[in-house]
Amino acid sequence: MAGSTFGTLFKITTWGESHGKALGVVIDGCPAGLPLCEEDIQTYLDRRKPGQTSIATPRKESDMVEILSGVFEGLTTGTPLSLMVRNTSQKSSDYSEIASCYRPGHADYCFDAKYGLRDYRGGGRSSGRETIGRVAAGAVAAKILSTIGITLRAYTKSIGPVSIDMSNFDPEAILTCATCMPDRTADQKAMDYLKECMRDKDSSGGVIECVIEGVPAGVGDPVFDKLDGDLAKAIMSIGAVKAVEIGDGTSVSQARGSQNNDPFVNVEGIVSKKTNHAGGILGGISDGSPIIVRAHVKPTPSIFSPQETVNARKENVEIAIKGRHDPVVVPRAVVVVESMAALAILDACMRNMTARLSYLTDFYKIE
Amino acid sequence: MAGSTFGTLFKITTWGESHGKALGVVIDGCPAGLPLCEEDIQTYLDRRKPGQTSIATPRKESDMVEILSGVFEGLTTGTPLSLMVRNTSQKSSDYSEIASCYRPGHADYCFDAKYGLRDYRGGGRSSGRETIGRVAAGAVAAKILSTIGITLRAYTKSIGPVSIDMSNFDPEAILTCATCMPDRTADQKAMDYLKECMRDKDSSGGVIECVIEGVPAGVGDPVFDKLDGDLAKAIMSIGAVKAVEIGDGTSVSQARGSQNNDPFVNVEGIVSKKTNHAGGILGGISDGSPIIVRAHVKPTPSIFSPQETVNARKENVEIAIKGRHDPVVVPRAVVVVESMAALAILDACMRNMTARLSYLTDFYKIE
Amino acid sequence: MAGSTFGTLFKITTWGESHGKALGVVIDGCPAGLPLCEEDIQTYLDRRKPGQTSIATPRKESDMVEILSGVFEGLTTGTPLSLMVRNTSQKSSDYSEIASCYRPGHADYCFDAKYGLRDYRGGGRSSGRETIGRVAAGAVAAKILSTIGITLRAYTKSIGPVSIDMSNFDPEAILTCATCMPDRTADQKAMDYLKECMRDKDSSGGVIECVIEGVPAGVGDPVFDKLDGDLAKAIMSIGAVKAVEIGDGTSVSQARGSQNNDPFVNVEGIVSKKTNHAGGILGGISDGSPIIVRAHVKPTPSIFSPQETVNARKENVEIAIKGRHDPVVVPRAVVVVESMAALAILDACMRNMTARLSYLTDFYKIE
Amino acid sequence: MAGSTFGTLFKITTWGESHGKALGVVIDGCPAGLPLCEEDIQTYLDRRKPGQTSIATPRKESDMVEILSGVFEGLTTGTPLSLMVRNTSQKSSDYSEIASCYRPGHADYCFDAKYGLRDYRGGGRSSGRETIGRVAAGAVAAKILSTIGITLRAYTKSIGPVSIDMSNFDPEAILTCATCMPDRTADQKAMDYLKECMRDKDSSGGVIECVIEGVPAGVGDPVFDKLDGDLAKAIMSIGAVKAVEIGDGTSVSQARGSQNNDPFVNVEGIVSKKTNHAGGILGGISDGSPIIVRAHVKPTPSIFSPQETVNARKENVEIAIKGRHDPVVVPRAVVVVESMAALAILDACMRNMTARLSYLTDFYKIE
Repeated sequence: MAGSTFGTLFKITTWGESHGKALGVVIDGCPAGLPLCEEDIQTYLDRRKPGQTSIATPRKESDMVEILSGVFEGLTTGTPLSLMVRNTSQKSSDYSEIASCYRPGHADYCFDAKYGLRDYRGGGRSSGRETIGRVAAGAVAAKILSTIGITLRAYTKSIGPVSIDMSNFDPEAILTCATCMPDRTADQKAMDYLKECMRDKDSSGGVIECVIEGVPAGVGDPVFDKLDGDLAKAIMSIGAVKAVEIGDGTSVSQARGSQNNDPFVNVEGIVSKKTNHAGGILGGISDGSPIIVRAHVKPTPSIFSPQETVNARKENVEIAIKGRHDPVVVPRAVVVVESMAALAILDACMRNMTARLSYLTDFYKIE
Repeated sequence: MAGSTFGTLFKITTWGESHGKALGVVIDGCPAGLPLCEEDIQTYLDRRKPGQTSIATPRKESDMVEILSGVFEGLTTGTPLSLMVRNTSQKSSDYSEIASCYRPGHADYCFDAKYGLRDYRGGGRSSGRETIGRVAAGAVAAKILSTIGITLRAYTKSIGPVSIDMSNFDPEAILTCATCMPDRTADQKAMDYLKECMRDKDSSGGVIECVIEGVPAGVGDPVFDKLDGDLAKAIMSIGAVKAVEIGDGTSVSQARGSQNNDPFVNVEGIVSKKTNHAGGILGGISDGSPIIVRAHVKPTPSIFSPQETVNARKENVEIAIKGRHDPVVVPRAVVVVESMAALAILDACMRNMTARLSYLTDFYKIE
Repeated sequence: MAGSTFGTLFKITTWGESHGKALGVVIDGCPAGLPLCEEDIQTYLDRRKPGQTSIATPRKESDMVEILSGVFEGLTTGTPLSLMVRNTSQKSSDYSEIASCYRPGHADYCFDAKYGLRDYRGGGRSSGRETIGRVAAGAVAAKILSTIGITLRAYTKSIGPVSIDMSNFDPEAILTCATCMPDRTADQKAMDYLKECMRDKDSSGGVIECVIEGVPAGVGDPVFDKLDGDLAKAIMSIGAVKAVEIGDGTSVSQARGSQNNDPFVNVEGIVSKKTNHAGGILGGISDGSPIIVRAHVKPTPSIFSPQETVNARKENVEIAIKGRHDPVVVPRAVVVVESMAALAILDACMRNMTARLSYLTDFYKIE
Repeated sequence: MAGSTFGTLFKITTWGESHGKALGVVIDGCPAGLPLCEEDIQTYLDRRKPGQTSIATPRKESDMVEILSGVFEGLTTGTPLSLMVRNTSQKSSDYSEIASCYRPGHADYCFDAKYGLRDYRGGGRSSGRETIGRVAAGAVAAKILSTIGITLRAYTKSIGPVSIDMSNFDPEAILTCATCMPDRTADQKAMDYLKECMRDKDSSGGVIECVIEGVPAGVGDPVFDKLDGDLAKAIMSIGAVKAVEIGDGTSVSQARGSQNNDPFVNVEGIVSKKTNHAGGILGGISDGSPIIVRAHVKPTPSIFSPQETVNARKENVEIAIKGRHDPVVVPRAVVVVESMAALAILDACMRNMTARLSYLTDFYKIE
């Protein structure tokens, strides 16, 4: 078990290395009857592609997805979906230095410690390209969720010291701004900051927020498989994420109960909450309010500045990482966060369908 | 599946409600040959018991554990350990108001929305007493980890605005101070703050930190079952936790790569890191440095102040929660965090034992 | 992982040894709203109790079940059901010989080889008493299945050379005859045969058949988690079972396609099969016909005749097993087969509820 | 969850339909350091290819496997192996009749009942081609097992009324005879019988036996995940298998304990069994003797004779299946049985590596 499977009922297994022949994902448990074509998935994959902007790696990646199984006459059949993206533009020669040297902030050393060898080309399995399978599967999950009234929106909340102003919120900007910020003013400031980082041969971290609307109350399980527990794992399993928050997140530790509790209130016959400090989850179960999750992403570990490290012979050496690398991974990770959230939410929605005996008796009605 | 199972190879399943007959846990996959007695487990359970101090609920809980299976002549046999704690002091009459009313910040409403009914006595399955099974299992996991050189230490890092000063670090204080802070000065200030909260009929949040030492490099899996992903789920699945951080955690989002990267260095022949911003995990795999995880815990939702809410008939009502409740859950949750971390780490250590073919050929040597 | 968990959505974990303090099972994923009391479970447990007849062990076992969690005001709450049976009549002294000696046909040697030690009292975890947890859980599963129109009936089909005559089929006899045969004539012959076995200090094997009616077409998954695959594991995992058959079973290997194929036919608007050689399962999925599964049970390995074996010091010795043991395990295993079949079928029925997108959109209707 | 994943530590997920673009498997948990190339896998796949003989379908299938990930410089890296076979020779036009009509003995009707639609081309996911992923993964598992001294040999034991004579056993014949029988005389008789079946527009069933040697005592878990339980599921999940036997199998039901028990005996310091009625497994755990498992395979359901059935409009119709189909699936299923057995055994061997505390302390030695 190398931990490449996620989910219980909507179960995905990803595979592939940065510079291998291809990367992909198998989705087992996709319900039959979903209209699905490659374009549905490509739209999501394109969001993780490097852009044309000055902050993105100039590497040209086409990353065209191919559906290899599980769709017939335009509909999913209930059998596994196999989605594949062929690697085309990888040049192994770019990464020869990594072969003998452990890059700070990367998994190189840990891979050698664990497996005794590693595919060092472009980070191998620990490359950002590993997320192709997550995003392809997330596209399918999000499409299913949309049919049951659930929508997800992830965006960049901050880059380095630059945060968005929620009063400027412009959803269009998420897909069009290079930073994926929903605030064009902040986007400009963040771009300036990133240029400064690049000038300094340095990189920046940031925060991604995802808001999930339409999840009815009752989704998620009360103990280990809490909805927030599943989201935490989903999001923390994305490379470079070092903290996950739900709702008010870290600020709850300084709050008082009278501030943090959300009063329930009847709004036109529906149980609602006056506030949403909880971020839509209480006791691990959705409460009907929007679900809010945030990921704190570390600065790109690959920087042009020289760094101290050791090589495979344990000798102290200096490394200056060449080649292409973004000064920030946040914008390209936005769709990854959205995808992982979609996968966690969909799986919980499906598991929830057997929570009551009446659900079974309604389903297996005896006429 | 109600999500009451955690772990793959060291697999635990907890059960029980606050006011049911008993609570417990079944551990499947405990290796044979571990010396184990009830005292080993009781020591851990006693740490989550309410103390004698002014901030803890006066409810007297004996919470004596009984080992029902899996131990023979003082050693584990490899078969499931069934650990049980009988409920003794619960009085259902205390909680009658909850039956018809949804307490803000609690799971009452979500349970009704999910299951159509709930055991309202003392919070039922969502009570803090649910953690008895986690802690009993955590005691066993921690004992196993100690035999392979891995130790865990969790403590209160802050309560409301009061944080510990690491230069005052006193490990003895964790077990003796009412706040479980390893700093007696901070403990006093925190106690003063909690008394203020109680005077205000209010409650406080706080932060728990857990440091795990001795995990060799190579533990954890690279994609979904990252060691930090597993820890995030383990910790976020504890009731009242709203954020999880690894290493520098949320502060990475404002850091630069040159600050956040930890240089590798050869220290007496061992690959080490000069700093530990990563909190001991890179790419989801342990790097040999101490693993650092933090949980942000929300203020106790049960407060004496009157609160707005709705009842089961969806009528807007006011509730003032009576009975016993602590102004902060942090001190009693310290051992829960330590237990969940132990479970996640042990499971990853066991899964790691098949990572290389040479591990198999060494194990199944053919003479 | 010691393999004590069965099922994905209706997930059970059993624990306990023959001579430990207790045995039991935790059921996670039982839907909320099922009326359940101890009597529901006791009825099943009583069927595996030794009877008063001459072929059953004279050991008096009360085996009273206690529901420790998961039921509130007579209904399941959706949280784990913990069911326990205290051991009362076990005397360790009876089994001292096994401590040093490997009984032929038993797991004693394998346990030592695997774990390095074993609870030798009464066979420990490999005792027939291990099935208490299976039957207790099976009782709950069968009760749920009955609410969706699915019924199970297991019975003894043969003991040694004595088979039932289906034209004599008398369902009442299953619960009243000592052999659990649904044919009183065969029961008498089988009893005579068993007395002969006992006279010879020997034991007998037999066949158990289980017929499951009311499973609609469409239950079960097409590849590894075929309904017959799940049933095969469920039944083969019962101690002493050495073969599992579905429908015509072993006889298909000598049949021709024209004989073995079941023609489909429209019967009053319902797709039916003219025959049922397939035993109700095609391609791993139920076809709407009764599901038929058979278990071949080996003779009780504990016999009074002296046998050759080795002891823990690997010395060749002779053993004559004293104490109480039945000349046949078949009658007491009938309810175990029925229980395991119920567990496998229920889990598949629950998994099936997310097979189509329309099931999700119907469930999560947006008004 | 559509049930396309098998195994816990050596976990495979297969995908693909008969007439889709490709079929394949992802293996997660393959230990790092195994020398692996496409030829290793192709050898196994070629064994399930239709031969040149008169009994095999004339369809030409190249079925060339491609390794897409998980191997670097000739060694497995510990990350997922993705293995793919492109479909090349499929012509959808051959199968148009199935679209509207339920073939007796096939899963057509069950698929429609479950999913509401199906990929009818060539049986879709329920085609024999589904086993490509199993065999590709089985080849890897078998290669790993060989490094720890475990070998598997499956062969045809009988076809219709023709059984092999063990005294003629010729292992070479398995790979060279069209029937995969290890007895050239029986092979000839079986071929004659199959020609007779073909003349009658009919088909035949048969029996496959697999013998696994070198499994040390102690592999397998005592309750649900018994080694024989896992093998039963592995084998019964192969399409067309209707019965699974371990060791003496069905004949135990007529045996007496004194015949069926295998006496233990010290052979040159090793605990052995004088006989092997148990087929190498006692109490679900390997006992060190060869493991023997048998599969009873039904006759090919596709026959040229006209058959009664219904169509999708539930009208009674007659069908005569055209196109290519073998009169027996047994020979091509031999390598499938061997592969599934390899997968079950390897997974159990890997799970066994954490059975004792001393295994952990040896592995994580603290110097």
